[in-house]
Amino acid sequence: MKVVLYMASTVNGFIAKENNETPWSDEEWKSYINKVQEYGCIIIGRKTYDIMKKYDEFNNIKNPFTVVLSNQDITEKSSNFAFVKTTQEALSLLKEKDFNKVLVAGGGMINSLFLQQNLIDEMYIDIEPIIFGSGINLFKECDFEAKLELISTKQLSKNTIQLYYKIIN
Amino acid sequence: MKVVLYMASTVNGFIAKENNETPWSDEEWKSYINKVQEYGCIIIGRKTYDIMKKYDEFNNIKNPFTVVLSNQDITEKSSNFAFVKTTQEALSLLKEKDFNKVLVAGGGMINSLFLQQNLIDEMYIDIEPIIFGSGINLFKECDFEAKLELISTKQLSKNTIQLYYKIIN
Repeated sequence: MKVVLYMASTVNGFIAKENNETPWSDEEWKSYINKVQEYGCIIIGRKTYDIMKKYDEFNNIKNPFTVVLSNQDITEKSSNFAFVKTTQEALSLLKEKDFNKVLVAGGGMINSLFLQQNLIDEMYIDIEPIIFGSGINLFKECDFEAKLELISTKQLSKNTIQLYYKIIN
Repeated sequence: MKVVLYMASTVNGFIAKENNETPWSDEEWKSYINKVQEYGCIIIGRKTYDIMKKYDEFNNIKNPFTVVLSNQDITEKSSNFAFVKTTQEALSLLKEKDFNKVLVAGGGMINSLFLQQNLIDEMYIDIEPIIFGSGINLFKECDFEAKLELISTKQLSKNTIQLYYKIIN
């Protein structure tokens, strides 16, 4: 299973404001939606699920199969969603469903969890031309370090650049 | 006076590890040193001054005229250094000395201070292919937001990319 992190970020590493607002550009959203369609499935955390549900974002990203990591039991009628408690459960479930690649799509806690467990193969970071004074970190703070290889860069718009990395360790 | 921030950063927005270590690439250092030589002067904070002095980095960057922002009085024999208490004093002093541009070069607290006071015109961020789990933020957390325009990007090496921005507000 190829596991690829996809996030938009400010220049200084925040994936959202403290209030969870994500004022990203249309071009960034378009790039993300295209990648979600290509992959067909995403893994997200419980908070991200709540926010996306609140703002009807699952429709916006064309309803990929969505695995939510959560310690709580959640009631959700759509068969488009699965709720699991561990990263391994998430990946096993996707394998059962014949997916061979998946996007990990936030928030910072889930990103950290997958990175710390050496489960992320590649990473797309769309760097928006914004600085937040504070916000949600790309990776929730914890004790690790990872080395990357830059695979390619792509200008998504005049001011937004996408960095595409391979995770080495 | 043109004020330009120059920093190296991890992909997730840290300019150093918690222990102040900065394991940047040779190519990044070379780019920084070239820019310092072009400008001839830098503004840094007290902590950055202490660290650079400890590791003989002023020699490494070829001894630019260095203005240190510090609330404390510091004894330093070299005429290459000036110690001031405010951003305005720093800029006035450089103007007196006939500099018309300067690099602001860390740490996070000084970067934040200049950004909050709308004193930064442009910003170079060299993004190294590394993720730290925690560290020193590019901008010390505080309540502000800035919009940027991407002027250009430059690949400093296979894995290091430089983003060059204009600060809009």
